[in-house]
Order: sequence, then structure tokens, then C-alpha cells
Amino acid sequence: MKKEKNDPEKQENAQLKAEIKALRGRLMAQQQEFRAKGLPILVLVEGWSAAGKGSLINELISEIDPRNYNVFSPVLTPESEARYPFLYPYAKAIPENGKIMFYDSGWMEDCVRRDLRREITRDEYKNRVRAVCEFERQLRDGGYLVLKFFLNISQQEQRKRMNALRENYETEWRVTSEDLWQQNEYKLFKEGYDAFMEKTSEVIPWHVLDGSKRSLAARDALKLLVEQIDKALEEGRYVGKPFKESFPLLKMPKLAEVDLSPSLTDEEYRKELKKLQKRLGELHNVVYRKKIPVILCYEGWDAAGKGGNIRRIARPLDPRGFDVMPIASPEPHELARQYLWRFWTRLPRSGHFCIFDRTWYGRVMVERLEGFCSEDDWKRAYNEINEFERQLTDWGAVVLKFWIHIDQDTQLARFNDRQNTPEKQWKLTEEDWRNREKWPQYEEAVDEMLQKTSTKNAPWFIIESNDKKYARIKTLKIVIEALEKACEGRLS
Amino acid sequence: MKKEKNDPEKQENAQLKAEIKALRGRLMAQQQEFRAKGLPILVLVEGWSAAGKGSLINELISEIDPRNYNVFSPVLTPESEARYPFLYPYAKAIPENGKIMFYDSGWMEDCVRRDLRREITRDEYKNRVRAVCEFERQLRDGGYLVLKFFLNISQQEQRKRMNALRENYETEWRVTSEDLWQQNEYKLFKEGYDAFMEKTSEVIPWHVLDGSKRSLAARDALKLLVEQIDKALEEGRYVGKPFKESFPLLKMPKLAEVDLSPSLTDEEYRKELKKLQKRLGELHNVVYRKKIPVILCYEGWDAAGKGGNIRRIARPLDPRGFDVMPIASPEPHELARQYLWRFWTRLPRSGHFCIFDRTWYGRVMVERLEGFCSEDDWKRAYNEINEFERQLTDWGAVVLKFWIHIDQDTQLARFNDRQNTPEKQWKLTEEDWRNREKWPQYEEAVDEMLQKTSTKNAPWFIIESNDKKYARIKTLKIVIEALEKACEGRLS
Repeated sequence: MKKEKNDPEKQENAQLKAEIKALRGRLMAQQQEFRAKGLPILVLVEGWSAAGKGSLINELISEIDPRNYNVFSPVLTPESEARYPFLYPYAKAIPENGKIMFYDSGWMEDCVRRDLRREITRDEYKNRVRAVCEFERQLRDGGYLVLKFFLNISQQEQRKRMNALRENYETEWRVTSEDLWQQNEYKLFKEGYDAFMEKTSEVIPWHVLDGSKRSLAARDALKLLVEQIDKALEEGRYVGKPFKESFPLLKMPKLAEVDLSPSLTDEEYRKELKKLQKRLGELHNVVYRKKIPVILCYEGWDAAGKGGNIRRIARPLDPRGFDVMPIASPEPHELARQYLWRFWTRLPRSGHFCIFDRTWYGRVMVERLEGFCSEDDWKRAYNEINEFERQLTDWGAVVLKFWIHIDQDTQLARFNDRQNTPEKQWKLTEEDWRNREKWPQYEEAVDEMLQKTSTKNAPWFIIESNDKKYARIKTLKIVIEALEKACEGRLS
Repeated sequence: MKKEKNDPEKQENAQLKAEIKALRGRLMAQQQEFRAKGLPILVLVEGWSAAGKGSLINELISEIDPRNYNVFSPVLTPESEARYPFLYPYAKAIPENGKIMFYDSGWMEDCVRRDLRREITRDEYKNRVRAVCEFERQLRDGGYLVLKFFLNISQQEQRKRMNALRENYETEWRVTSEDLWQQNEYKLFKEGYDAFMEKTSEVIPWHVLDGSKRSLAARDALKLLVEQIDKALEEGRYVGKPFKESFPLLKMPKLAEVDLSPSLTDEEYRKELKKLQKRLGELHNVVYRKKIPVILCYEGWDAAGKGGNIRRIARPLDPRGFDVMPIASPEPHELARQYLWRFWTRLPRSGHFCIFDRTWYGRVMVERLEGFCSEDDWKRAYNEINEFERQLTDWGAVVLKFWIHIDQDTQLARFNDRQNTPEKQWKLTEEDWRNREKWPQYEEAVDEMLQKTSTKNAPWFIIESNDKKYARIKTLKIVIEALEKACEGRLS
């Protein structure tokens, strides 16, 4: 009798097992191709506590070669201890070309739980949801295959599983007080998850999986994964189209209109420099104490005086609290990821200064002009960068961008000086001469960049640097003014 | 009258200022050369709280181009929260070739403070001091210029400075309760610092600077730095000689002596696999709870079955708690640092598994045979690696190393199979064929490696893998046994 009763279930199980095996085989075969074609795949696995996210990921990876995948398991620290932008850990963990990264929960849990815990305000929640949509779109437009799963179980099923875990020493630690809180507040979480999924399904859809039976969820997830990879491999790497979002842009002059004559006498310079550096040193303390992140972006013509300008800013700062990030050509492991990745990974902790000596604007200057990315890529980048910078200022950062400006004659004079001064020769390369020949093209690109990315939250400043002294004092004043404003009214 | 009295002091100050300026100029000129020659320079600045470490570093960097230096400021978290080996943050921060890294305090403060705070036992302190000596020697032998400064002030001077800092809002936060404790326990710290310096001055000497007058300390530090850089540039990159330390080595058979016939039937395999994986899954929970780090190292012939073996270990593990690290050829930013750096940066958090698919033993195999490092380099590496692994097991890690072994016929059969199976083709490269031709040379190198690096704390196991099933079961059993032993008696 018993045997007969079980038969349909047994049969179903056997069939599921066979399907899973077949799908795993296909995934195993696919890895050769997504590796060869350099397709990066991001799989986000969200869901209820005890829904089996870990087991599901284990089912998915079991036949993939370890060289081709990674699993990222974020740890949610209390918001009060968070020292980086909300998306930072997730952006840092994106896969490189040709690999799959599985996220064992991620930005959804981060948003929903902090919202329900009231660790963030409603406005912060909204900004984060917007940032999530931007992040996912930017990845997709950058050629990433992104899949999002939500592993669903009922309140009863969750209670049953948690109780089972709590029954023995080896597993009881797995049920945290946060999990128990979720169990008690199941309804609240359900609303939170549903609302989040609704708000974030436009670019990348959510797939809700039935977590009540593990093999069922595994089969469904595998099927979706295998199908989407097939599709992506067939269609080739996706390149997003440029798009227009309405950022409040500041009016910027054309470079040709800028008067480069302002200068300072040595005496004026020394006096001002001393006073301003003292003030900046004081403000650094306040900024540190109030945990305000400060991001200073330097772009400008070769030999415009970026280095010396940066040193005058850095001089009064406590070396514990700042970093200068020189940005050179991307290394192979950086080229193998979305172009903003190498800047995400270099962001300062809150309360720290980060001075970028060249920046993500390389995308719309050198990469545009040298053809290192497609036209769609750099045209899309204006908005992507505006989004990225808004995410930084939403986090609380002060973001200031300086275009260190000189004219062609001044550049030539400085190049010659470098060439003729032994200890300066290392600063001058063949590339500098080549870039100089493309001055008109660069000027056009810079003008477009300044028009399209000078936002109220992250403004550009053109720094007249034919006279370096004038340039340094002007930059110091801008930084000081912005920091004073940022410190006002912020709690320490 | 007053004017006259001040004159000698004024004169002295003016002279100091001039000296500092001249030294800075020399440093500025040197950067071109240490950059071109790829000399990596590590400057450790230790000293009393409020001695002016930050200001000193600022004096040192003020004329160096930001592209050529970095400052690292470690944060001492409570020992109870430390999830990595003691040297981890410092090893992670070492400079790349051609750059200077300034450490704004480092391993000295870490050791001395934790010892005085009784966060570590006396034995742990001793082990850490030994690790420091090893770390510094390995850097020196790897061509690094290492300088160590201790900035000294008296108890009275420290009290005066702390009081001044505590007088206003902008700076009072700089004096922490730890600093006040040091002020009260000045004598105790003095003994601690002195003892530490005495124990760690054999390889790299300490330079104690008088911190009571900032310009004096700056002048002395600059002078030492400039002189040492000159010396290093003149003498060329240092390559350490091989040395012998007495590690308790386990007796290992030669590969040629290994009987590769053991095998399992499918049925035996399936039964054992299921049982052992279940047990490993249970142990993973305990290991996680007891915060034991687990490091499994896989080396072996091409096509020996490393990947499949690793997957059988990984299968029962919770993906939140393990990583598989495939080790390929080093990338440029990895080649630009000491060879163990890319492994330091990949270490697991305590409680986590890290499975290395190929390891730091590349140094004494492929790098030796292909001439990617000098003979002195790979000969020195046996002891350096033993030291590194002892640092890992001192931290509490379980370190197990597997040589997955097959014979040449089996390799050929598997290569042919890969070549003839479309979904396996990606696994087989030209390089595999080339390596195969060097089997005898590799066998010699592997034999030497097994003889010289199988220590009691981090033993090698030869895994007979002509029959992959046998190999997997044997590996699982070894891992389980080691974990059971490690879990015994460890507090959770």
C-alpha cells in the first residue's frame, strides 16, 4: 500500500533529478563558451532566511569549474558602522569577463532590511532603490548578463526549518536574532520584498522561485540560467544605447572663452597659501570627525600643473585621512570589468579625502578619442557618470571636479622645460607629445564633458593654470568653501 | 636683548630649514630613478602617540609625486574581531616596484599594544615577533628597501601635546582613551617598545628619531631615507641568498615510489562519498562556529583530477563559507610585488575555507623551471614558504597540501580524451603539452618540494589519482580527520 502511494512522488523526484542532471550538463558545456567569449554573468540570489539560498547556489555551481565562478556573501554590518556607499560591496564584487558571480543575497536584502529596521530614512530608501536600478542598467548596458532570483517560502515553512536548525549544536548558530525577527515580522517583510521587486523589475526582471521543495527550485533556476546564457551567447555582447536623463546641469563656459590671464605675485601667493592651508587642515579634522567623505577629481591638460596643485591640497592634510589616487591606463583585471569598477574599488572611507589624479572621465576623453570604447559606450557614459556621482553625493560625499586649464603655448613651454631638466624628464613621455597633436579633438571632448556632467551635486570648476600659483589658491578656496558648507549642520 | 637671545636658535632653525629643503630636492630627483629601476621602498614610521608621525610623513612626501608613493594607516581593531592573520594588513599594503609606501604605524604598535593589553598570550607575542623578523627579511631578500623609524618623545612632552589637542573641538577627538592609557602607562610602553626594537633589529635596524622638535626629526628621517635610496640604487636590486632553518620536516616518499594502483568500485565510491560529504558538511558548521580558518592547497600534474576533487570537497560546504581560488599566471600588478603577496591578499577569513587550485608552490615548480625567478630566489623559497605557512598555522589555520598524482600514461589518456571531447577542449592548452615534455624536470622539482616543505603543521599528502574516485575519497578522509582534530578542544 505505502509503496503504491509514494509512486507518483517517487516518479516525479526521479524526473526532476534527471532534468537537473541534464541542465547541469548543459551549464558545464556552456562554460567553455562564455569563458571564450568573455561574457560576464551576475546571478543575484535573494529570498527568505532559511529558504535555501546556499543550497540553491551549491546546486548551480556543482558542475562549473572553479576557475569560472565565484560566490560572494555580503555581511550586513549595522548602518552606523557603514563607511562606504551602499552599493560599494556589490559593485566591488562584480564578475570579470568570462566568469559567473553568484551573490548569496545582496542589495535587495540590504535595502529592505535596513528600511524595515529604520536604519535609513524613507528618502534614503528611495535613493537606494534608484541607485539599484541604475546599477543594474549600467551592468546590462556594459554587456553583463544579470539574473535575479527570489527564493520564496511560507511563514510556516520558514518556522519549521528554523526550528529544525535550532535543534542541534552544529546548526543552531545559523538562526540569528535577525532571522527570528523576520519570522515574527513575516508579513512586514513580505510587503517590503514585494514593494522592492516591483520597483526594480523594469530593467532586469525578478524570477520568484518556489523554495518549498529544493530540487524544484534548483531545476527552475538552472533552466533560467542555462536559457539566458544560451540567449546571451547567441546574441553577442550587449552594448546599451545612449539615453538622456534630466540632471540639473550647471551652465559651463567653453574652454576657448576662458580668460587665462589671472595671476598672483609671489608674496600674495605665499600669504594666501599659508592661511588657506591652515584652514584646510582645521577643516580636515572636522570632516574626519563628522565622517564626511571628500572626493576631489583632477583632470586637465598634460603639464597643466595637476601634480603641484594636488600637493598643495595634500600638504596640510593628515596622511591617515587621505589618499592620492593616480589613475593610469587600466590593468588587465580592470579592463575585464565594467569601466567604473576600478573607481568603485578606490573610493575613500567616510571621513577620508580621496584625490583622484585623473578619473572616470577618461571614458569620455581618451577612451573616446582613441577608440578604446564604442561610440554608444562613451555617449552613454555622461549619464552613467552623473548617476555614479549622484550615488556618491547621496552617500554624503563632497564631490568637486577640477579642470586644470592652460593654453597651448604654455603647454609647449612646460614640455620644453621638462625635456631640458633632468629630474623632470620622467614626467614627459612620447604620449604627451602625441596627445598634444590632438588638442582640438580633446578640446571638443572636454567642452562636451563640461556641458554634460557639471551637476549641482558634483560641479566642475575650470582652474586657470597658466599661472600655477593662481590655480592653487583658487582650488584651495573652492575646496574650503565646499567643506565649510558641508560641515554646517551635519551631526558629528 | 630679546632679539640677541633668540639669534642662535633662529640661526639653527634657518639652517635646518635649508637642509630639509635640500634633502627634499634630492628625494624629488631620486623618484625618477627608483621608479625607472623598479625599486620598492617600505618606510615604517612607529612611535609614541602625539609624537608627530603624521606630520613627519607629510614632510617626507611633500615633494614626491603622488604617482610614486602611498600612505597606509592601519586601524587596530580589537583582537576578538580580528579575522585574518596578524601580518595580513601589513602584507597586503606592501608597495609595488618603483613606489614608496609609508606605514603610519604598523606591526610594532600592533604587537606591543596587544601584548600590553593582554589581548594576546606571551606565546602569541613571541610568534608574532618571529613572524615580523621573517616578514622583514623576506621583503629585503625580495629586493625591497625597508626603513624603520621610531619617533620618540618624553612623557612630559606627550602630556603637553595631548593637553593642547584636547583643548579645542576640532582636535580633541584625536586623543583617544587608548592614547590616555599610554600616557598613564608610559613606562610600561617604553619597556614594551624597547624590547620589541631589540628583538627586531637584526635584519632591518631601527632608527630612533628625536620627536621633540619636528624639523629635527624631519631632517634626520629625510637624510636617512635619501642616503638609503642612493645606496640601494647604486648597489642594484638585492637578491637574498638561500638559507636553512630547521623546520621539523615529515619524511616523504619519492613520486617514483608511489603505488598508483589503488582504486574503488563505483558502489564503494558512491557510498563513501555520501557518508563523507555529509560529515564534512557537519564539520563545516563547527569550523565556522569555532572560527577556524581552513586552507586546502591543491597541486598536481595537469589532468590529474584537481578540479573534480575540489568539487567533491566543495559540494557539501555552505557557499557563504568557502572560496575556491584558481591561481593562474600572475597579472602585472601581482608581478610588481613580492611573490607571496597575491596569496596574502587571497587568504580566507577565520571560519572560512579557502581551496587553492594551484598555490605559492608555483615558485619552486613552474617559476623555477621556466626561469621566471633566479636560482637564489627559488632555493630561498622553501624556507620562506615554510615560514609563511607557520604564520598561517600560528594564526590557527588548518593547512593541508595535496599533490594529486598520476603517471604519464594516465595523463596522456586524459589529454587525448580532452582533445576529443568538445566540452572538455577548453581545459587543454598548448602549454599542457609543453609541460608534459618536461615531466622529468618537474618530477625532480616536485620531489625536492615535497622533501623540503612537508612540515608537521602544514603537511603534504600524495593523492593517488589514477583512479579519481579513490583520490577523492582519500582527500575527503584526510580533510575530515584534520578538521575533527582541529575542532577538538577549541572554544567556540
